[in-house]
Amino acid sequence: KMLGRVLCTVLLVGALQSPAKASQGHISVVLLGATGDLAKKYLWQGLFQLYMDQVSSGHSFTFHGAALTALEPGQRLMFDVLKRLSCPPDEAPNRCAVLKDQFLKLSQYHQLSTAENYTALNGEIEALLRQEGLKEAGRIFYFSVPPFAYTEIARHINSSCRPPPGAWLRVVLEKPFGHDLQSAQQLAAELTGFFREEEMYRVDHYLGKQAVAHILPFRDQNRQFLDPIWNRHHVERVEVVLKETVDAKGRTSFYEQYGVIRDVLQNHLTEALLFLIMELPANVSRAEEVLQGKLQSFQSLWGLEKSSAVLGQYQAYSGQVQEELQQAQDYVSTTPTFAGVLIRSDSLRWEGVPFLLTSGKALDERVGYARVLFKNRAYCTQSETLRDAGHSQCKAKQIIFYFGHGALNTPAVLVSRNLFRPVMPKDSWKEAVAQSDLHLFGQPLSDYYVYSPVKERDAYSVLISNIYHGRKDFFITTENLLASWGFWTPLLDSISRQPPRLYPGGVENQHLLDFEMVSGGLAFTLAEPAELLNPPRQMPSDYKAIQSKYRQSPLVSAWSEDLISQLASDMEEAAARSVARSGQFHLALSGGSSPVILFQRLARHHYAFPWKHTHVWLVDERCVPLTDGESNFFSLHSHLLQSVRVPYFNIHPMPVHLNRRLCVEEDRGTELYAQDIVALVANASFDLVLLGVGADGHTASLFPRSENGLEGAPTVVLTESPVKPHQRMSLSLPLINKARQVFVLVLGKGKHDITTLLSRVGHEPRKWPISGVSPSSGQLVWYVDYEALLG
Amino acid sequence: KMLGRVLCTVLLVGALQSPAKASQGHISVVLLGATGDLAKKYLWQGLFQLYMDQVSSGHSFTFHGAALTALEPGQRLMFDVLKRLSCPPDEAPNRCAVLKDQFLKLSQYHQLSTAENYTALNGEIEALLRQEGLKEAGRIFYFSVPPFAYTEIARHINSSCRPPPGAWLRVVLEKPFGHDLQSAQQLAAELTGFFREEEMYRVDHYLGKQAVAHILPFRDQNRQFLDPIWNRHHVERVEVVLKETVDAKGRTSFYEQYGVIRDVLQNHLTEALLFLIMELPANVSRAEEVLQGKLQSFQSLWGLEKSSAVLGQYQAYSGQVQEELQQAQDYVSTTPTFAGVLIRSDSLRWEGVPFLLTSGKALDERVGYARVLFKNRAYCTQSETLRDAGHSQCKAKQIIFYFGHGALNTPAVLVSRNLFRPVMPKDSWKEAVAQSDLHLFGQPLSDYYVYSPVKERDAYSVLISNIYHGRKDFFITTENLLASWGFWTPLLDSISRQPPRLYPGGVENQHLLDFEMVSGGLAFTLAEPAELLNPPRQMPSDYKAIQSKYRQSPLVSAWSEDLISQLASDMEEAAARSVARSGQFHLALSGGSSPVILFQRLARHHYAFPWKHTHVWLVDERCVPLTDGESNFFSLHSHLLQSVRVPYFNIHPMPVHLNRRLCVEEDRGTELYAQDIVALVANASFDLVLLGVGADGHTASLFPRSENGLEGAPTVVLTESPVKPHQRMSLSLPLINKARQVFVLVLGKGKHDITTLLSRVGHEPRKWPISGVSPSSGQLVWYVDYEALLG
Repeated sequence: KMLGRVLCTVLLVGALQSPAKASQGHISVVLLGATGDLAKKYLWQGLFQLYMDQVSSGHSFTFHGAALTALEPGQRLMFDVLKRLSCPPDEAPNRCAVLKDQFLKLSQYHQLSTAENYTALNGEIEALLRQEGLKEAGRIFYFSVPPFAYTEIARHINSSCRPPPGAWLRVVLEKPFGHDLQSAQQLAAELTGFFREEEMYRVDHYLGKQAVAHILPFRDQNRQFLDPIWNRHHVERVEVVLKETVDAKGRTSFYEQYGVIRDVLQNHLTEALLFLIMELPANVSRAEEVLQGKLQSFQSLWGLEKSSAVLGQYQAYSGQVQEELQQAQDYVSTTPTFAGVLIRSDSLRWEGVPFLLTSGKALDERVGYARVLFKNRAYCTQSETLRDAGHSQCKAKQIIFYFGHGALNTPAVLVSRNLFRPVMPKDSWKEAVAQSDLHLFGQPLSDYYVYSPVKERDAYSVLISNIYHGRKDFFITTENLLASWGFWTPLLDSISRQPPRLYPGGVENQHLLDFEMVSGGLAFTLAEPAELLNPPRQMPSDYKAIQSKYRQSPLVSAWSEDLISQLASDMEEAAARSVARSGQFHLALSGGSSPVILFQRLARHHYAFPWKHTHVWLVDERCVPLTDGESNFFSLHSHLLQSVRVPYFNIHPMPVHLNRRLCVEEDRGTELYAQDIVALVANASFDLVLLGVGADGHTASLFPRSENGLEGAPTVVLTESPVKPHQRMSLSLPLINKARQVFVLVLGKGKHDITTLLSRVGHEPRKWPISGVSPSSGQLVWYVDYEALLG
Repeated sequence: KMLGRVLCTVLLVGALQSPAKASQGHISVVLLGATGDLAKKYLWQGLFQLYMDQVSSGHSFTFHGAALTALEPGQRLMFDVLKRLSCPPDEAPNRCAVLKDQFLKLSQYHQLSTAENYTALNGEIEALLRQEGLKEAGRIFYFSVPPFAYTEIARHINSSCRPPPGAWLRVVLEKPFGHDLQSAQQLAAELTGFFREEEMYRVDHYLGKQAVAHILPFRDQNRQFLDPIWNRHHVERVEVVLKETVDAKGRTSFYEQYGVIRDVLQNHLTEALLFLIMELPANVSRAEEVLQGKLQSFQSLWGLEKSSAVLGQYQAYSGQVQEELQQAQDYVSTTPTFAGVLIRSDSLRWEGVPFLLTSGKALDERVGYARVLFKNRAYCTQSETLRDAGHSQCKAKQIIFYFGHGALNTPAVLVSRNLFRPVMPKDSWKEAVAQSDLHLFGQPLSDYYVYSPVKERDAYSVLISNIYHGRKDFFITTENLLASWGFWTPLLDSISRQPPRLYPGGVENQHLLDFEMVSGGLAFTLAEPAELLNPPRQMPSDYKAIQSKYRQSPLVSAWSEDLISQLASDMEEAAARSVARSGQFHLALSGGSSPVILFQRLARHHYAFPWKHTHVWLVDERCVPLTDGESNFFSLHSHLLQSVRVPYFNIHPMPVHLNRRLCVEEDRGTELYAQDIVALVANASFDLVLLGVGADGHTASLFPRSENGLEGAPTVVLTESPVKPHQRMSLSLPLINKARQVFVLVLGKGKHDITTLLSRVGHEPRKWPISGVSPSSGQLVWYVDYEALLG
């Protein structure tokens, strides 16, 4: 009986559209989860909008709702929804009524559960097309189902529901797409077993919000104004914010697993931020160029650390979790419902500009926006009282993409009048009449050019239209998704032990969630008030570095991030002391992976480090060119030296590459380095030597049973490593032991065994070279993280 | 008869003071210019205040007014002034009346014109002391006379009026102290022929203003709050401002020679700025430590350039000059009556923070202040409407030293309440009651802690008291003065040809004098409106670079500063082009003095220069260690490399120092450099070579009749310079001629002869090596300034 309906529709459609327009082929839309919340609320309406918009496009359509429910009740449920579809205000009521009637006739419910169900659906589609003599244009499968069902459905579609060659397949996926990098990779790997990348449309519905979708076109159309100012010299900060008044009640089973960062920041806010900060592609509607821009942006971002975020949880949350998830009364959740995160880039364009991402539930208002605040570079000679008229350059300058809700209650683009009058596409954005009494972002609305959409469109309508048009730039590719998880996962890991600050919710939050940038990270502005901690919380507390002894020397121990912070601070203190004493600080650094995070911390958090008076030496080097990725110096340069201001003359890479060849004895590189040390370092006694330990007990490039460097003169030696590259240059133990201070950094579970072993053995440098580190008149301090210490 | 008066006074004083207090000795104050404007308005009142304050100190006083006028009329004039001395409101009227009577009796007029007059004055003082049996404590000579009279008076004082050993001499000098570095040096040299440094008290009356005088004590007493934030990471900008409503009418004979920069910025505003930015001495009242701090600050400031300033002149000024100085109707003055100047420091503390100094006559209000605005580092989660209560961290944070006048009409110290409650000395500063309706610096007065002086004291009273107490930190030492002129003179020279913007004066100025920071300098925000230029001005216009031909190649010519700007822009363009083409830019730079200003310009104005992809090579080098002040590389490093981010691996100093010895042939430095070039630079063809020209026609380190490098292979050679250090390393002419572009920079009168000669000769590299520069397939461009071109 459906066939009759289609036939009739085709005739009807033919009556509505210009008869000259030949059919572009048939499109079958299959909505999986047709009776779920999202489908009820947005998706059917979006499909109906698609039908209204495209009924005259030359394409014919059928709409297949599907669920696990049996046919009869499923049908009833689905048509209850379809009957309530509304006509948009900008559509002629008569036309809409006719189209709604057609839409209902073109829609059908299917139970899709078993493999047979899928084969049957495919058969029906094929039969219909054959019977109607229609060419197939393509099929859309919209997954509005929980992610655990994805693989199964994907398998069925791939094996029985693919359209014939020449027609396209588009599968639409809804988040969550994993909850960290590993799970996202796994899910992505499964899906790519069934679908090609170009067939997958991952929805982030923020990309369908009109103000978000207009960020790139805005940047493109206003290049003339933005080119000179869209950079670190002019931009003061970027904020991307989603504040909600609702809480997680009724959704805690989902929310407890995800939290605000996975729910909002990793996807929606990150995507909006990328549109603002990515290098603008030549063609902003070419999905491939946009994707490349996004991926490059991710690469330029600094890694997130625990100190990059402030976290909160509304007070009622734990109770809601206890109730909804049947947890005990003493169950305490650490899932954040509020987060502020500081993101920084080291791109030429954005270096030093803070990007602040903020979102939370149970806040005082519902609003979302992306805001670019420009630096105030003007001085207004006129007195303030006379200044307010006109477009004073002393007023704040900002551009805001207002997602909706809030005081404006509409999507909007706001541009300060003292910046420029923006170019806006007249067919889709109109200049709004200012409500004179409104203040936004510190200024009266009259200070802005304000634009709102000519037609306000729901995000899902926009996205469904873009699926139809194959506009992949509105969707999240696998690469994009994994890059985003790769960026966020380290933060998620590092805060998993962190108790969020409790807040009462709503206007009572007052200033409790205000935060500020402090030495490279974020911190709440107010101290946590004690009375809020009621009942007192028993949390895995934020371990501080503890002090003890190891091998008769001072030991500092903590979780690795805290340990690195402590070590970096101690190094700065040592540097300041040394510069005060002698005007210089001679620092010898080791290679390897452990120091990388230390180098980054020094570069990013220790502004007052006396780099100008610091000499940087290498403890050891691999015999590769300095620009080789394997070079210790190259790593040191990438993670530290290129970010700080050490004078060129104070940088002392080891001369492993002389006369365009590597570590050839007759080039006398070791002698040259030793001569430089003697010439510049008083008494050849470094102020500070930083060492690591290998699992075999090696340190510097002094390996067990090494022929050179374990004893004898304080000098520089060539050694052999058991692993590639074999050839190394290293300070000798006697030279290391002349230092005023030696810090040894040991990180990670992989070092637990050697850490334990070393705690028991004496001075046996031939077996374990690190055991020979024993400064003759200097101080030795061990920095060992809990994983290395406790396993 | 004076002796009787003194005797009687001493008795009277004895009656007022505790009889136990022994006399601390006698002080003679001599006011030269006793009937002049400054004396009438401030100095006598200041001396009377000193007497009131110190009458019980144990010192006795006499006051000697002096001028060129004969005794009788001079006496009459002076006592007319003295009779009108007022009693301060905080002094008991009875006591004041008694003291005023005494003060008049202790005061005497002298005609001081000839050497005999001075000898006579000295005799009178000595006779008095002898007769009264008084010990002499010291003598103060206050020069309130035009500076041309200084030398003569100084000579007389030195030869006839010095007090005996054991008593001090203090001479007080009023500005102007010269009008540029040279004249200030000359005046200083003359004075130091007569007085020791510790005897001279140069007045900058701003140092006596209570709000200015409190800057250092405030910083000292609030170290706990300021230490973490008084730096580039927290401070957004510093403004020091003096706005006046009066114009220069009646004073144009002075003003036309000086202008606003010499009158206000070089002294008052600079001193206030230094108090804000200098490193805080351990003891802020020790003059020597304060002076050292100031001098170090001067050293850290970037040199000023034409683009550092915006200049204005009120429209009526030229007419006033014509009238008062009897100039012709077409006389046009270029003296600025308004200036905004951007000052920057490269100290670790202040790098990147703009210091804005602004002053002008005929503005819309009279006010002076020094303002430190902090960066907004906070994000306030609460909506704006709820935010205003309390000390929100999202409000502006600032500290203002308010000199006086303006809306507050009193000296004051203002500290934003969201910063900290400052420590203020209760005996001298009191918390002011906020006038609720007042807005200052963008905020209601209630947002600040406001302090005003317990006793408002005139600057001259403060200074005279400080002279009495020997507080030299309130005065300008010779070193300080010369450092300040050394800093300002280059700007004064470079703007001497610059026509200031005309402004109508008062509130009509509107936004005409607003200015902003643009690519490292300042510019007015609004374009100059044409209608203001009435009558049309015939000015020595602001020459732009002109284009022409020289030796068959393109020639760019301009005044040196404009020429350097053009060259730097052209270099950036070449770099961008090259990076776009090949991903790299190979730039070979010459040593010498001409490029220094170019290097600074590149470092400070060309933020977008692709340094990360630039390789920096040397055209030539002196055979000295790289850290030697004579090294070309050292100069390049100081003026360019240490300020930009060129990767370490891309920096290629010439290997003149191998095996710890200089340019020894067997160390094969030239070969190594040539090998590096071949290995890294495609086809050994530099993208850009920058050359200079010597007066002898040499270029690079290729000298006339050099045995090496003028012909033959494209290589690197050792050469001999006719001047020290003789040994050099240089690219050879054939290697230079392989470059894609060669720019030759020629600056200054000293190059005029060679420029003229070269325009006439052909290709004769053995006589004039520069004539052999002729890129085989690249482009040659000459950048020659007007002084070199036109002599």
